[in-house]
Amino acid sequence: MKMSEIDLRLDALKNAYQEKTLTPREVVSHLLEKATAYKEHNIFITLLDESDLEPYLSKLEQSDPQSLPMWGVPFVIKDNIDLAGIPTTAACREYTYKAQQSAKVVELLIDAGAIPIGKANMDQFATGLVGTRSPYGVCHNAFDFEMISGGSSSGSAVALALNLCSFSLGTDTAGSGRVPAAFNNLVGLKPTKGLLSSSGLIPAVRSQDVISVFALNAQDAAQVFDVVAQFDEADEFSRELSDLTPPVWNKQPVIGIPDAASLVFDGDKQAQANFEQTVATLRSEGFQLVEVPFADWLDTAKLLYGGAWVAERYVAIEDFIEQHEADMDPTVATIIAGARSLSAADAYKGSYKLQQAQRKTALLWKASGIDCMMTPTTPTIYSIKQLEEQPIEHNSMLGTYTNFMNLLDYAAVAMPTGFRDDQLPCGVTLFAPAGSDKALLQLTDALHGKFVSTSGAKGLPVPAPNSDGFADGRVIPLAVVG
Amino acid sequence: MKMSEIDLRLDALKNAYQEKTLTPREVVSHLLEKATAYKEHNIFITLLDESDLEPYLSKLEQSDPQSLPMWGVPFVIKDNIDLAGIPTTAACREYTYKAQQSAKVVELLIDAGAIPIGKANMDQFATGLVGTRSPYGVCHNAFDFEMISGGSSSGSAVALALNLCSFSLGTDTAGSGRVPAAFNNLVGLKPTKGLLSSSGLIPAVRSQDVISVFALNAQDAAQVFDVVAQFDEADEFSRELSDLTPPVWNKQPVIGIPDAASLVFDGDKQAQANFEQTVATLRSEGFQLVEVPFADWLDTAKLLYGGAWVAERYVAIEDFIEQHEADMDPTVATIIAGARSLSAADAYKGSYKLQQAQRKTALLWKASGIDCMMTPTTPTIYSIKQLEEQPIEHNSMLGTYTNFMNLLDYAAVAMPTGFRDDQLPCGVTLFAPAGSDKALLQLTDALHGKFVSTSGAKGLPVPAPNSDGFADGRVIPLAVVG
Repeated sequence: MKMSEIDLRLDALKNAYQEKTLTPREVVSHLLEKATAYKEHNIFITLLDESDLEPYLSKLEQSDPQSLPMWGVPFVIKDNIDLAGIPTTAACREYTYKAQQSAKVVELLIDAGAIPIGKANMDQFATGLVGTRSPYGVCHNAFDFEMISGGSSSGSAVALALNLCSFSLGTDTAGSGRVPAAFNNLVGLKPTKGLLSSSGLIPAVRSQDVISVFALNAQDAAQVFDVVAQFDEADEFSRELSDLTPPVWNKQPVIGIPDAASLVFDGDKQAQANFEQTVATLRSEGFQLVEVPFADWLDTAKLLYGGAWVAERYVAIEDFIEQHEADMDPTVATIIAGARSLSAADAYKGSYKLQQAQRKTALLWKASGIDCMMTPTTPTIYSIKQLEEQPIEHNSMLGTYTNFMNLLDYAAVAMPTGFRDDQLPCGVTLFAPAGSDKALLQLTDALHGKFVSTSGAKGLPVPAPNSDGFADGRVIPLAVVG
Repeated sequence: MKMSEIDLRLDALKNAYQEKTLTPREVVSHLLEKATAYKEHNIFITLLDESDLEPYLSKLEQSDPQSLPMWGVPFVIKDNIDLAGIPTTAACREYTYKAQQSAKVVELLIDAGAIPIGKANMDQFATGLVGTRSPYGVCHNAFDFEMISGGSSSGSAVALALNLCSFSLGTDTAGSGRVPAAFNNLVGLKPTKGLLSSSGLIPAVRSQDVISVFALNAQDAAQVFDVVAQFDEADEFSRELSDLTPPVWNKQPVIGIPDAASLVFDGDKQAQANFEQTVATLRSEGFQLVEVPFADWLDTAKLLYGGAWVAERYVAIEDFIEQHEADMDPTVATIIAGARSLSAADAYKGSYKLQQAQRKTALLWKASGIDCMMTPTTPTIYSIKQLEEQPIEHNSMLGTYTNFMNLLDYAAVAMPTGFRDDQLPCGVTLFAPAGSDKALLQLTDALHGKFVSTSGAKGLPVPAPNSDGFADGRVIPLAVVG
């Protein structure tokens, strides 16, 4: 079988399996070969081999393709999420352990028929938004080898953009599931905190971590979300979707955008032009856009690293860092070790500031009459060289529009909005209060094709909007988008 | 006018005003005289004088008694809650400031016609459950001068028990609104966190503080609650009652009690006998009582002082304690200054333990099929002499059944359950998830008279149950008690 690119979109793959033009065994074999060819991108920390994959394949071959929603769907897992029998590294060799059981989310996907093909490179201990902080090598952008991929879920995003899987799992504490989506022309779903179990995830900032989903389009992301968004008694941060009460949207959601003075592009005219064009497109499509005074959101973003939350990163690896600080990525070690000097008083003061920020932003949200917000996903993008010159400053800049998201308990979806003059992808993030995940995905589905015609870097088409698949199972009627 | 004891229950007082057998001016004058006679109890830090009271009285005299729900109702305020124009001390002379404006809750009561008559003695900075930690003198129990009053809202409780007001405001972080209720034969409502504004309250553990209500009976407590439970945009911890979703009760709520092995009485046979009798009475009244494995609740209680939350007490008075540690009550200073050495890592570890405790107790609650829980309010009571011998250990013991309540986000009502052989009052606490305040009060109303015939120490009758006044204004139907 000769094939340059398989259409790995969920529905396309399902059709191919139904029509028996492909088998999971063929798909996986093809992907492993391709993955090896992309070795210089440093996408994978562990690529599964044939013997690792055989149990999944033979089990699928004994089951009915119709019986499982993810039957034969290849996916990639960020290497801070456990896959049974495979090492978990968190991109730190000395930290590595062999996972005894799969993370809950991984288990749900495998039970639904999905096939894990590899553990992806990442910024060490998920501390970074860049993709350069890994002893397994800098993860390169799918569009331009000289540019950063974004992180910390770098390998997960690049694998999907290079058509090595149908979707991938990242994590997203500060933006790690959105920044790499923007830089690789993907949809990045940062679910509401607690809707996806964190059992089997190495914590970064445990109170703020979520497992995230990279998908080629919103329809695929919604299908994955439906499989993995399951309450987990064993994860004390797990929440029931039915306990959340997101606002009900009108037919045409009112979209907030930051006031002009709050918009930050770090001098990047191309990024600015893309956002302005995105706003203009939405207005021309009849959307009501409302400028919202955005300073309180930007201030909240600064709490995540400027405040005491870094101490959660320290708690997550306390025993390890006390023994192995010298073995860690130097930037990551500097950031996390800095938390040793933070006091409990600092932590509580930070929590009060956050409480104030939650109140202020909630009041502004209400006063603005908006249903969701839209911001650039990042102010700009950097080359690997630029990043290496200013590893902490540039990293901070990339979190401008993402760091506040979990602190303020939003769901968010990063959506591609086209290509800059330099042919790099660019995107916005749509966000709304906890529980609005499916509504945001439906809005993304309606908008995505207005900005780009292809997903990732391999030309897979963006599907026509389709309102099926976004129903939420709850009584609350969520977004129907015009 | 000659009167030994006025019936200060809300409905009785309202009737007296309507029938013009009393005026607010007469009532207040009488109460100030009586309060002075109880000087040795150390109830008040500041008793208002005639000139302080004149504006309230003359304003009332120009208004219609029917127009205001609290018209002419005298109340007492714990001295960590601001009353405009009067010093706030938090029971620390060096900390004292003159309040520029009243706390939000005080303002709501005054706007409703209530008359503040004094600022009550308390354990310094609300750090204690005893009533002995005050430079303004040990506050003495209303029933026995040698016994502790309970704290930290000591003066508020004793003032009400001695019939110096119709109700009083305390605060309740660790039990400060329930322990003194139990020791003085009163109803103590610890509202759901955030339902009463904390604007104008000196924080103790800011994330866990609530202003609480002492009342002679549940009907009075519900009337006060209705006036003060107002969302306050200016208090970032304020919550809307309508945003809470307490479980719906059946007609006859199922009541959980701690498993026998978890019950703690510190060797006090009389306290144990009272609780056993209370359980027996409820069974004989047809209530279904279910033993619940209670160890996780008791463990959670230990977090409040054993964990990093003490650092919130430090943050609350950081500038002051750094200048005036030697001016503070030595026990209080020791406890709060101990927080200096706690790290941010300690704070986050504590928050994870709490998250686990919330999950475990929620699952146990669900598995037990209970609607509310009932525990002793305290394991025992101590004499002032005993307390002075072991000020920290005995204080900790008193928080056994109260310290977990705000951490686990319950509403709670302390209810008298009769007198021990030594004639001291004794009580239980009913608690249930956030938002169940009125349901718990209605249950208290139905039960209170089964255990005692009088409230406080001055023989005011416990009213017959009356289901009016407990409706909640929400769509959710709450408890109707058989």
